[in-house]
Amino acid sequence: MAPEDVQRWAVKIEYDGTPFVGWQRQKNGLSVQELLETAASHLAGGLAVPSITAGRTDAGVHASGQVAHLDFPAGLPLVERAVRDGISFHLKPYPVVVLAAARVSPSWNARFSAVKRRYRYRILNRPGRAALDVNRVWHVKFPMDVGAMQEATRLLLGTHDFTSFRATSCQAKHAIRTLERFDVTREGDVLTFHVEARSFLHHQVRNLVGTMKLVGGGHWSLARVREALEARDRRAGGPTAPAEGLCLAGVNYDPDPFALVASD
Amino acid sequence: MAPEDVQRWAVKIEYDGTPFVGWQRQKNGLSVQELLETAASHLAGGLAVPSITAGRTDAGVHASGQVAHLDFPAGLPLVERAVRDGISFHLKPYPVVVLAAARVSPSWNARFSAVKRRYRYRILNRPGRAALDVNRVWHVKFPMDVGAMQEATRLLLGTHDFTSFRATSCQAKHAIRTLERFDVTREGDVLTFHVEARSFLHHQVRNLVGTMKLVGGGHWSLARVREALEARDRRAGGPTAPAEGLCLAGVNYDPDPFALVASD
Repeated sequence: MAPEDVQRWAVKIEYDGTPFVGWQRQKNGLSVQELLETAASHLAGGLAVPSITAGRTDAGVHASGQVAHLDFPAGLPLVERAVRDGISFHLKPYPVVVLAAARVSPSWNARFSAVKRRYRYRILNRPGRAALDVNRVWHVKFPMDVGAMQEATRLLLGTHDFTSFRATSCQAKHAIRTLERFDVTREGDVLTFHVEARSFLHHQVRNLVGTMKLVGGGHWSLARVREALEARDRRAGGPTAPAEGLCLAGVNYDPDPFALVASD
Repeated sequence: MAPEDVQRWAVKIEYDGTPFVGWQRQKNGLSVQELLETAASHLAGGLAVPSITAGRTDAGVHASGQVAHLDFPAGLPLVERAVRDGISFHLKPYPVVVLAAARVSPSWNARFSAVKRRYRYRILNRPGRAALDVNRVWHVKFPMDVGAMQEATRLLLGTHDFTSFRATSCQAKHAIRTLERFDVTREGDVLTFHVEARSFLHHQVRNLVGTMKLVGGGHWSLARVREALEARDRRAGGPTAPAEGLCLAGVNYDPDPFALVASD
């Protein structure tokens, strides 16, 4: 459809990634994208409502603040609450919900207009497995040195070639990225990493956290982390942390399309 | 069994209350108590291992720090890690896990030695239902005035006759209890109540939170809360908040039996 034939809406979405093959449509299972577009098409009398997302999360990865845009037919009378609550209604009983909806210009793009992606990764660090946070955390039994991990995160802050921490299947043209935030804190048995950048390489957050686990367990020194970064070779980086600890916490835009929308 | 025939162990337990009929054994479904005692009996060659708990949580109520004691046969060679990890192993695949185990004297009692119970109640306060915290929060759609609720919690702090906030089926001899802590804070879309006392009446926390919801929505004034307390009549109190928002966060003992146990 030409831009004048569509009305573009930005939606903020929360989902539990456990039952899905990931964000992107796939033939081998249920994706968040397929559910969202199907739910949205119910508001458009069955017409297709294609979406573009800010971050194509992998199978098992969660989101508390994913953002996508949806192109509805231009003539439909849509208002913020009806889009938000209508899509959420049609998403039942799946663990996916629209938290906010805002009309945006056809030149606005959930992927290309994003100025920052914010991820959170949680490790449950205790002997006992999770009973309450099943599928929400990575369970690491051995005691971890958070101070050492925090020092290691600082080595990786800023602009670097992250080839050693990108999936070998990553499609990006180059591996230079800028980590604007990368830190870890402990609260009780839970370690939380915050990782923020304009954009990320495929598996970058999980590969960084997998490497930090080696530091936290005393298996890797800070020097080894620096060597891994400088090697620019995936074989030099640490292992990929499991999907279930990862959550796309939010996406920033300037201006924020959701700043003025209804919150009740 | 006589005290000399048993070795008593204190265990700290986390569980997701969703699939259970509650703590206490019942004929109509699976209880945490039945699972725990059955798992413990595997360590005792099939002999019965009875338990007493600090707090008999209702169906759907969670615990991140429940405490119980277990009476194992005196002759068994048991050590802390084997009790903790052995019971947890036999609790699979249920969402129940033992976080710590400590040998205690036969005069120590999980219920009667407790000096404080700590509960947490969480409300998800936004238009959209929970996708990530399904069965973990009470979803309240309308905007809530946290400042008004916080003022109302202060009216109920301290020692009162809580007849208006106890279940009509409550078996306690009298309704006088002392709330040592009762407050509420907002973090994003989540309101968290902290409620602490030496002991509680049946449904007391849920009835208090159900009343606070009326205050938060502007339906009840502070004066109405005071009237409800002074009425000493369950019909004057607010409704019972649902089980899924409630979590037994911890139980205090003096001294703490888990202070010196293995944490790895």
